[in-house]
Amino acid sequence: MSKLLIVGTVAFDAIETPFGKTDKILGGAATYIGLSAANFKNVDSAIVSVVGEDFPEEHLNLLRSKNINIEGLEVVKGGKTFFWSGKYHNDMNSRDTLATELNVLENFNPIVPENYKNADVVMLGNLHPLVQLSVINQMIIKPKLVVLDTMDFWMNCALDELKQVIAKVDVITINDEEARQLSGEYSLVKAARVIAKMGPKYVVIKKGEHGALLFHEDNAFFAPALPLEEVFDPTGAGDTFAGGFTGYIASTNDISFKNMKNAIIQGSNLASFCVEKFGIERMKNLSQQEIKNRLLQFKQLTQFDIKLD
Amino acid sequence: MSKLLIVGTVAFDAIETPFGKTDKILGGAATYIGLSAANFKNVDSAIVSVVGEDFPEEHLNLLRSKNINIEGLEVVKGGKTFFWSGKYHNDMNSRDTLATELNVLENFNPIVPENYKNADVVMLGNLHPLVQLSVINQMIIKPKLVVLDTMDFWMNCALDELKQVIAKVDVITINDEEARQLSGEYSLVKAARVIAKMGPKYVVIKKGEHGALLFHEDNAFFAPALPLEEVFDPTGAGDTFAGGFTGYIASTNDISFKNMKNAIIQGSNLASFCVEKFGIERMKNLSQQEIKNRLLQFKQLTQFDIKLD
Repeated sequence: MSKLLIVGTVAFDAIETPFGKTDKILGGAATYIGLSAANFKNVDSAIVSVVGEDFPEEHLNLLRSKNINIEGLEVVKGGKTFFWSGKYHNDMNSRDTLATELNVLENFNPIVPENYKNADVVMLGNLHPLVQLSVINQMIIKPKLVVLDTMDFWMNCALDELKQVIAKVDVITINDEEARQLSGEYSLVKAARVIAKMGPKYVVIKKGEHGALLFHEDNAFFAPALPLEEVFDPTGAGDTFAGGFTGYIASTNDISFKNMKNAIIQGSNLASFCVEKFGIERMKNLSQQEIKNRLLQFKQLTQFDIKLD
Repeated sequence: MSKLLIVGTVAFDAIETPFGKTDKILGGAATYIGLSAANFKNVDSAIVSVVGEDFPEEHLNLLRSKNINIEGLEVVKGGKTFFWSGKYHNDMNSRDTLATELNVLENFNPIVPENYKNADVVMLGNLHPLVQLSVINQMIIKPKLVVLDTMDFWMNCALDELKQVIAKVDVITINDEEARQLSGEYSLVKAARVIAKMGPKYVVIKKGEHGALLFHEDNAFFAPALPLEEVFDPTGAGDTFAGGFTGYIASTNDISFKNMKNAIIQGSNLASFCVEKFGIERMKNLSQQEIKNRLLQFKQLTQFDIKLD
């Protein structure tokens, strides 16, 4: 049994897409990561995060039902849960943020439960770099793999702190535009090389509907996004990808490049479900058979047999 | 030995990219297709096209040296060769056309040489749909595979004629925006289904640096573009892709979906060379070893081994 420690937001989201809109529903990076990683065997996951008193027991129970340890999920008395609201444009590739209410997140001081200070894999979901750094510093044994997700917001307002975190992780996941911003290089091959020099041996560049690239030294691996009839709601796709990636790594206990290729596919596979319904709806009751069938689709989508002798 | 009949422009291009600019150099869809297909064994290729008296013997000799039959390449006395000039923007994904001089193309009446009226594979490069239609109609035996390339220009000014051609081909290659325009569907999965109903059993959607998708009934295959440090000049990449696709199909004489997957990879592989230098420069002296090495890179880029039992 490997331990996976997840830090990230647990939140309320209100989402509008061309297909409809939601009231305040369960969201947050750690939620998506946790639900995604929960699809793998032999993984003991824990979430470190914070919510307010307004956070319903029902959501906590959902996480518990997925065997996610929430000892490190602080509930602030009298506090309000972090709230994000966004509206996607017709092409689903861009969105406007309508509201961001930090609430309890503003003074969040993450406490890693004793029993997870020796986690094998640490997934640092998108949050203030200082919170991510604090989690790394609480580990009493160096984890086998530390994976960082971040976004342009922190590049714009906390670049120095972000660079401190980047220097301490093994893998960074970042989208294409953010990789260009962080590196100052337009070519993603060059961008990955520049970012790798900042610390991470593995650089994952997410391109949304265009798939994801994994770079390590002079090697590259590419996972397409599954071509879907309709993307219903892209919210959480990147976090679900990260949860699939780290969940699979923890489950297999293998951090070789070869296994990371599989992990990238597993992440892409789970993300392809996430976008089919609003919020976490599709991820709540995903069956092993559904996951397997779609992995088979990924194989058919990408595997060929040109003989090279 | 399979016969591959190629119709398309043979032209002069003047290209400007952020890396430099060229004078009038050899270009044209049929040129790129022919040079690309010339990398496969057991293919007897012929080009049907037209040039002016200004077209240098040296260019004709290049085509001959690649064993491309140019009996059907008409040289118009006193005529001027088709000329296109374009400037790429910094991101290399968009370009402005600076000049289009149709010249001899204006009254082009394609004549398929007797010996190629029974070609196994016909590649209809981007040209007026009526020219493409005329070539199909000259075939005395139904070819095993007819592949069509086209562009938005013909959708805007000759849609009815274009639809007549589309109804008669087995494979269409088209870029993502054009597929959306032609089908009226944003989702590429839906777009491919609508286009398939117009005639072609196989729909290839090209996404430039984001790769290419092949659709057939409910099956899909995806080939990424090789991640390159630098794209020097994208001119001809789509035609080189089409030449690799049809050249490989002709060479293997196998039109199964399974083999088309390989053909898509071969096309993507050759296109990855094309963009490394201006115009046809990189394609002139490509070695079998270089091609093979890069196919190996494609394998490493895409192949994984998740066990699904």
